[in-house]
Amino acid sequence: MIFARVIGTVVASQKDPNLNGKKLLLCREADHGGKPLKSYHVAVDAVQAGEGNFVLLSYGSAARMTEETKSAPIDAVVIAIIDRVQMTHPAGGGA
Amino acid sequence: MIFARVIGTVVASQKDPNLNGKKLLLCREADHGGKPLKSYHVAVDAVQAGEGNFVLLSYGSAARMTEETKSAPIDAVVIAIIDRVQMTHPAGGGA
Amino acid sequence: MIFARVIGTVVASQKDPNLNGKKLLLCREADHGGKPLKSYHVAVDAVQAGEGNFVLLSYGSAARMTEETKSAPIDAVVIAIIDRVQMTHPAGGGA
Amino acid sequence: MIFARVIGTVVASQKDPNLNGKKLLLCREADHGGKPLKSYHVAVDAVQAGEGNFVLLSYGSAARMTEETKSAPIDAVVIAIIDRVQMTHPAGGGA
Amino acid sequence: MIFARVIGTVVASQKDPNLNGKKLLLCREADHGGKPLKSYHVAVDAVQAGEGNFVLLSYGSAARMTEETKSAPIDAVVIAIIDRVQMTHPAGGGA
Repeated sequence: MIFARVIGTVVASQKDPNLNGKKLLLCREADHGGKPLKSYHVAVDAVQAGEGNFVLLSYGSAARMTEETKSAPIDAVVIAIIDRVQMTHPAGGGA
Repeated sequence: MIFARVIGTVVASQKDPNLNGKKLLLCREADHGGKPLKSYHVAVDAVQAGEGNFVLLSYGSAARMTEETKSAPIDAVVIAIIDRVQMTHPAGGGA
Repeated sequence: MIFARVIGTVVASQKDPNLNGKKLLLCREADHGGKPLKSYHVAVDAVQAGEGNFVLLSYGSAARMTEETKSAPIDAVVIAIIDRVQMTHPAGGGA
Repeated sequence: MIFARVIGTVVASQKDPNLNGKKLLLCREADHGGKPLKSYHVAVDAVQAGEGNFVLLSYGSAARMTEETKSAPIDAVVIAIIDRVQMTHPAGGGA
Repeated sequence: MIFARVIGTVVASQKDPNLNGKKLLLCREADHGGKPLKSYHVAVDAVQAGEGNFVLLSYGSAARMTEETKSAPIDAVVIAIIDRVQMTHPAGGGA
């Protein structure tokens, strides 16, 4: 999964019927500290996320494994709103 | 999902039988404001999209989750024509 | 799907049994005008494509959705030989 | 699969129910020698991995093939803690 | 599929049970002529490949379509040892 910030919503009236009632979130990828990166993704909301939330995005067939999204022709879903990222060694070196 | 602009169609007579009757759209990736990016994708149309439309592309197994595309050997589908992208903070920073 | 040019074949005698009888095509990615790009892919042929053909490649689980390829451990298939790409506005800007 | 070092954990209380009880690991991609690379991934733990471990990450639908992770809307899983990487020709040239 | 050279093996004792008995190969991506590229991948062996072999790697759900690998939480498999790559026009231009 990757980190992202919800920065907006996408409105579409002419769409696949399986998208009806689903919220399409515009997400900007972020690093683990919340700093914005260059990529943007549109993902379906599965956790009542809103603008400004720091979230976890899941890609691919995983996107259809929530109650909200099963059978929908989508490839990205917001699966969690992040409380915090805990790192003992923030520099990221390891052992 | 990613944003794209439909800029043409692909014509192929010698093809997998599951592609018969499906419209192959040439799409140019775009950013959330509609500005053209460098990547091009060929996607099957599931929403009667046409040239010039600003659309949402879904990738991978998701591409076979529409009535139009089930069982077809395709990896990309146009699932929505975008009306508008709403952002409270267009700069994209977030909370 | 992406565009590619078939530029050769791959020969392998020690292989997974599900590959028996399948033609492995060496494909060079191309842009929508047929101009060669830098990536190379090996894809199974599902449409009797041959060297020099300008084709459409499908990736991922889609690669196993043709009669030729079902159940094979492959991630890329040639699904169409392209006759032509039609663009009203070749510059690619759109509406 | 790719190599990564576990460098932290992600805490989220508002999340898809299928994530309950699962440990979300912050992983930094590494090369085969354990040297940190630039990408970060969040993966579910399937092998009791902890901070500092050098691990193997699996992506995509494979992420749902462990007892820990089946049916969860996730796209990455830690499937092994690496003891060592053996190379006869460390320079990587091959035969 | 992509080309790679097997350059080593990965040893892990603490791992998902579905990996038991499977050989984890360290593979370095190569071009169609066998020249080493920059990416490294860990793939499960399905064809008795060994160090130095020039092989074909398949990614994603395809990795679970061999007898060796079904149900395993893996995203890459070695499906063939390459005898040769045949190109009529080695420069790669095409028709």
